[in-house]
Amino acid sequence: SSSSSPLMNPLAKFKELPFVSAPQRDLMLDLVSVLETRLASALLPCSLPPDVQYYQNQTGTAEASLYIRSGIPSSPVDFILGNWLHCKLPTGGTLNITSLSGYLKSLSDAPNLLFEVIQSSPTSFILILDLPPRKDLVLYPEYLKTFYEDTELDSHRQLLEKLAEVRPYFSSSLYIRAVVSPSAILVRIEAEAGETARAEEIIRDHVSPIAKEIMKVWLDLCACVEREVGEAEMLYLRKRDQIIKNKTIEIDLGSNFPRLFGQEVADRVLGVLREVYNA
Amino acid sequence: SSSSSPLMNPLAKFKELPFVSAPQRDLMLDLVSVLETRLASALLPCSLPPDVQYYQNQTGTAEASLYIRSGIPSSPVDFILGNWLHCKLPTGGTLNITSLSGYLKSLSDAPNLLFEVIQSSPTSFILILDLPPRKDLVLYPEYLKTFYEDTELDSHRQLLEKLAEVRPYFSSSLYIRAVVSPSAILVRIEAEAGETARAEEIIRDHVSPIAKEIMKVWLDLCACVEREVGEAEMLYLRKRDQIIKNKTIEIDLGSNFPRLFGQEVADRVLGVLREVYNA
Repeated sequence: SSSSSPLMNPLAKFKELPFVSAPQRDLMLDLVSVLETRLASALLPCSLPPDVQYYQNQTGTAEASLYIRSGIPSSPVDFILGNWLHCKLPTGGTLNITSLSGYLKSLSDAPNLLFEVIQSSPTSFILILDLPPRKDLVLYPEYLKTFYEDTELDSHRQLLEKLAEVRPYFSSSLYIRAVVSPSAILVRIEAEAGETARAEEIIRDHVSPIAKEIMKVWLDLCACVEREVGEAEMLYLRKRDQIIKNKTIEIDLGSNFPRLFGQEVADRVLGVLREVYNA
Repeated sequence: SSSSSPLMNPLAKFKELPFVSAPQRDLMLDLVSVLETRLASALLPCSLPPDVQYYQNQTGTAEASLYIRSGIPSSPVDFILGNWLHCKLPTGGTLNITSLSGYLKSLSDAPNLLFEVIQSSPTSFILILDLPPRKDLVLYPEYLKTFYEDTELDSHRQLLEKLAEVRPYFSSSLYIRAVVSPSAILVRIEAEAGETARAEEIIRDHVSPIAKEIMKVWLDLCACVEREVGEAEMLYLRKRDQIIKNKTIEIDLGSNFPRLFGQEVADRVLGVLREVYNA
């Protein structure tokens, strides 16, 4: 874990990723670096207040960092959001969540980006990796073809599921299952107890190349491309996106945040998130 | 297998289910019986031509039966469709598919019914069991709550997945994965080679009660209930339903049927199906 004070350089706090293994940190930093290099001047600097870029609870059992960069007005990127969360569990274990997501504006209908690792022990992870669709794939088969079939996104899921340590993961939230694409990677990775090296090897040799490939598809086909979107469709996208953002806050943060960080910190962070999500 | 001639009583041919195990036949007949008893006078008799109710290819390596009853004009039921298909594979094995589905009209927005068993050996099945949604679940969270969360449909999937012989199944068609609900049962059931009795036990003791429960939800909440649907929504449902039906024909039947039954039989059966699907 990191020895630097969170108050010394809050801007860099997200990129410290102090609580995860080296391969996990390397992967996240690689992804952020590719994103920021490729989008470069299309992104505004992170302007979050320092006490939202890094925050903790009073007893120091939970700490977290948030990193958001909004797109400039002419970019289809609404914002990119990275975060990590570390907390000690009452059971004695620790929980580490790291995530990176990308949201587009309603002037594009292309998919968003979602990458999340939920680690409940050094050998046990849940991995969520997807380009969540922005439209009903049943009603728009061409959209399914363009972003999911022609890109062969499912081949990555198939590769990963060949590993003995990998099993499909079913979120307890039906909403989350509904919001991801049919080629979403939703897996539980479990190396045998004590086999930390094997767990890290899976992240480095298997998860990492797949995450980079999927991020590349997002950049090539979604985040850096202009799509033709009519006025009615824009209203549809705005409505659907808004529901997704509200639900994400509700499910991911709404119930857990006050419990983990206390009401004051939770209100502060959720307030900033709601502003970004509703801009 | 059955000893009666297919020409003697084509109307009853579907219910013979001559090629599947007793527990599979019992389950299908139970489901059809519950459907037909409960819907009773809301359904018109099956009026398919005899050579569509039962058909085979020239060499006798593939045979199949189709059974369709349309709803009366005032019923929300568009039609129920049962079928079985038996064919000898070039590899020496046989393939048995049995299915039962229920489609509603656009005057209701409630989910459809889908039950399908694809059997590639006496100990190996794929089971698809779902109430496929008629609306985008992301855009309509209330719909997700009413039909999937409040009904606890996912509990059946969770129960089934506790069996050692049961594994999640991922259809090779992303479209099919997109069309089912987030609580869909899509599993591969594999008993050990030779353990036919165990495979039949799983159908009888585990699949059967779950299939009946899900059918009951469909009857109670969907097929026998009036839902308020506005004019614009009806157009949306009609469009979405039509896409689903066309895709179903294209994926399920379009490519395989001519190969299995020859062009003439395929044209005859697909022609009748297209009529029913577009009525």
